[in-house]
Amino acid sequence: MRRDEFSVDEEKEIEAFLSGMSFGFLGTVGEDGRPRVTPLNFVYDQGIFYFHGSRIGEKMNHLKASPMVSFSVADEYALIPSYFTDPNLACPATTYFKSVTVSGRAEIVTDVREKAAVFTLLMHKLQPEGGYDPIDADHPVYAPRLRNVAVVKIVPERLTAKFKFGQNLEEGERRQILCGLEARNRERDLETAELVRSSVPERPRKKNESPCQSMENIE
Amino acid sequence: MRRDEFSVDEEKEIEAFLSGMSFGFLGTVGEDGRPRVTPLNFVYDQGIFYFHGSRIGEKMNHLKASPMVSFSVADEYALIPSYFTDPNLACPATTYFKSVTVSGRAEIVTDVREKAAVFTLLMHKLQPEGGYDPIDADHPVYAPRLRNVAVVKIVPERLTAKFKFGQNLEEGERRQILCGLEARNRERDLETAELVRSSVPERPRKKNESPCQSMENIE
Repeated sequence: MRRDEFSVDEEKEIEAFLSGMSFGFLGTVGEDGRPRVTPLNFVYDQGIFYFHGSRIGEKMNHLKASPMVSFSVADEYALIPSYFTDPNLACPATTYFKSVTVSGRAEIVTDVREKAAVFTLLMHKLQPEGGYDPIDADHPVYAPRLRNVAVVKIVPERLTAKFKFGQNLEEGERRQILCGLEARNRERDLETAELVRSSVPERPRKKNESPCQSMENIE
Repeated sequence: MRRDEFSVDEEKEIEAFLSGMSFGFLGTVGEDGRPRVTPLNFVYDQGIFYFHGSRIGEKMNHLKASPMVSFSVADEYALIPSYFTDPNLACPATTYFKSVTVSGRAEIVTDVREKAAVFTLLMHKLQPEGGYDPIDADHPVYAPRLRNVAVVKIVPERLTAKFKFGQNLEEGERRQILCGLEARNRERDLETAELVRSSVPERPRKKNESPCQSMENIE
């Protein structure tokens, strides 16, 4: 996998993002060459993505026709309206988001003990508070169910991460966006402002300088 | 498009869902037969999906290689832990969600007036409060930008909608899940409970019957 483009900190950010996201979108190709996108719960563990599903159906037919897949996870933090930075033009309207997309090979897991291990990981992620018998391939109720469910792993060959929080903005625009988010204060706006701040070291502010003074012309 | 499977009410639900969701996932196939999933802001208008992006790059190369695409939009409402209905087994753990996935043909929009109309729809959706000059193909600043941006429409041939809110549950389990959601009361749990309720007409409750009495054995 092309990993050399990520620093250790970025790796950690990617892992934290993927553990916090419960579902992603699988891209497969059928025998007729048509793509299919399927939303799926997943777990990411030591560089591998896992999901489960029915053993029959179009998705599994696609995987049998071609193991090459894409898998994408994205979370939108905030819509950034154009007027945060421009009083006239719609062009600066954008969204701030995190996304991770991999391209790789899907492998169908057949070993029942490996399946049990994958479900254990999935349950740890999606139901961390517990409240169920441990998932074991020898458990009399789990065993037949594990045999009858499909478990698939995706071994990524290429991983692209995009965390877009205004990293390319000029200082004045960044301040306008920070002020806009803080004034709007909707849903995840303050969290987004923190991510905008931490994505680029902030210029030291002059004494008595209002952080929002550059907003005056568009308010 | 296969539309006959949806009632008018379902059509309205699908449209309401798609207007409330700001982004979806595009599935394309490259010349090498590999799929690619790309998260994108989109607008859905009169049965057509629209998105925009750079005129160069892998996504556009894919669309030139093959116009067949898939597009999927999904929103997870609540993780339903297994212990809401089963004190021992992990099996009932699930998620309640809405998803709409289409399969269809992508067409690149070249007419600059049509591009302006698409951006107008996108802005109405993502920035309904306005705050920008109307987007017009004759506007001196917008015109060159409209020429230099790619706008793509997806004409769906098949649409699948899945709104999963426990429609197939037995009455006892449905009540356990409703009680579980209301007791947990996290994020969208109450909204999810309403969707569970409205997805199946509720059985009339006996006088003095607690809605949560069937939960006693798992609390």
